[in-house]
Amino acid sequence: MSDKLINGTETLRYGIIGTGAIGGYFGGMLAKAGKDVHFLFRSDYDFVKEHGLKVDSISGDFCLSEVHAYNNTHSMSKCDVVLVCLKSTGNKTLKHILPPLLHENTVVLMIQNGLGVEEDLQKDFPDLHIAGGLAFICANKTAPGHIAHLDFGKLNVGSYSCPDDSVLQQVCSDLENAGVEAEVLELKNARWRKLVWNIPFNGMTVVMNTTTDALIANADMRQLLHRMMIEVIEAGNKSDLAENPIPTEYADEIMHMTEHMTPYSPSMKVDFDSKRQMEIEYLYTRPVEYAASCGYSMASVAVLEKQLKFIQSTI
Amino acid sequence: MSDKLINGTETLRYGIIGTGAIGGYFGGMLAKAGKDVHFLFRSDYDFVKEHGLKVDSISGDFCLSEVHAYNNTHSMSKCDVVLVCLKSTGNKTLKHILPPLLHENTVVLMIQNGLGVEEDLQKDFPDLHIAGGLAFICANKTAPGHIAHLDFGKLNVGSYSCPDDSVLQQVCSDLENAGVEAEVLELKNARWRKLVWNIPFNGMTVVMNTTTDALIANADMRQLLHRMMIEVIEAGNKSDLAENPIPTEYADEIMHMTEHMTPYSPSMKVDFDSKRQMEIEYLYTRPVEYAASCGYSMASVAVLEKQLKFIQSTI
Repeated sequence: MSDKLINGTETLRYGIIGTGAIGGYFGGMLAKAGKDVHFLFRSDYDFVKEHGLKVDSISGDFCLSEVHAYNNTHSMSKCDVVLVCLKSTGNKTLKHILPPLLHENTVVLMIQNGLGVEEDLQKDFPDLHIAGGLAFICANKTAPGHIAHLDFGKLNVGSYSCPDDSVLQQVCSDLENAGVEAEVLELKNARWRKLVWNIPFNGMTVVMNTTTDALIANADMRQLLHRMMIEVIEAGNKSDLAENPIPTEYADEIMHMTEHMTPYSPSMKVDFDSKRQMEIEYLYTRPVEYAASCGYSMASVAVLEKQLKFIQSTI
Repeated sequence: MSDKLINGTETLRYGIIGTGAIGGYFGGMLAKAGKDVHFLFRSDYDFVKEHGLKVDSISGDFCLSEVHAYNNTHSMSKCDVVLVCLKSTGNKTLKHILPPLLHENTVVLMIQNGLGVEEDLQKDFPDLHIAGGLAFICANKTAPGHIAHLDFGKLNVGSYSCPDDSVLQQVCSDLENAGVEAEVLELKNARWRKLVWNIPFNGMTVVMNTTTDALIANADMRQLLHRMMIEVIEAGNKSDLAENPIPTEYADEIMHMTEHMTPYSPSMKVDFDSKRQMEIEYLYTRPVEYAASCGYSMASVAVLEKQLKFIQSTI
């Protein structure tokens, strides 16, 4: 930990890897609340150095004029908590990006969707303390150094290979103090629950080239999305969650929540529209393969996976 | 039967309902060979009356300048064989279109894809002799009264409720004499076999907005198409074909055949491109429902079905 405070608690130094919508929002909120936050930028570095980081949020717009901004991790100091907010398609670069930030007890928090991101990182860093984070937020980067926060804004975190939950508890406490709802949960359960939304809506908005509200407005599509949600729940319960299964009613809950959500292009649709690589691997391929290895066939989801791979090959 | 011929055989009077690509090609080939063929036209009637029916075929172009053309069935005489070559989305009109053409032994041959077309027609005409036909042909109507025949050209027929196969045998003989390969087969088996191609390629070219060759060129998509073929084969074998099952190798055969086919937009893709109604009901919904009623879940195909219904609702 970096500094002992007078009150006996410790303050965490945060590193934000990948300052897009997610990293910009959560990192920005922490920085705005006075936390010690250091941002790695790529293309936006010069812009942010000059103009700061701007967040247009439903809970109030703000601009951080003085940001600890870096364009490579070698110029950053070691951090207690690293929030990895990269698109998971870039995870192969972590092997080279992370080392300058790591001390013995650094916790790397993978704020990414899907299954398998911690597992893959642990292979490259066998002793690293890894955790996962699930962002429940509608946010997009609209311009360099400019984040639009449209709806929700919660972060669920859970340990993958941390010795205990103490750092994660402190992260949540920092976030809560900064006005962000945050909670420590059992990671596998949290990941599968998040997939219940992500799998149907990310892929289907791409394949149907539309937004969530248009999908939800169609009765046949609603039936298909619900079927896929059930498939995700059954896959999770069959593979990882036998002791604490997700109830099938969770699908209705998620459907209901989405019906009342601002019309939205999920991140995969934004990537597709921008002709960028989509996060097919961790969001679709790994869950389908993992479920199959546990004896469960995600037959509908596998269709979407192949369709997405085909589409990816054409853009 | 209309006329007794000197040699003791009978000549069949044919009625063609729906003179698009299929009706225009098979009817045109029969007429060119001197058979007694009467065509029902809708929008193309005036054009064909003036200019005749033109078929550009890989086996030789021809133009029938004198065609028995009609714009309603009340002005047609009764037929021995009616080839229904409508899109199945128009089958509800048959109740009103067919009666003037029917004598006691008329055979109505439904040259349409999918499952359930004969069943639905029989409900409206309980005593009618119904047969089904499966066209293996790449053909499109390119302009009024103008058919392009691009590849293949076989017609498989089978009885649904004919007293015997004699008329169908004669139809096949007429077709063969006219240069069209034709065969009498067991109808259910023929319908399911045809679905092995139609289900994956019709829907997927629409959803992916591409042609068969582009789908086939992609390894992930090939895997998905093959999976769907297996699903169709298993559904058929489980429901209708227990005694004469389709071997799973048939999927490889069909895949191989399609790999060597001229790049092609299946009829559903042509309908989609023209913003017309797609034949989702008989090609997807009925097979999925029928298989489910026999205890088999066509899980991948059901995804395509819902996606198509969503797309249909947007065009």
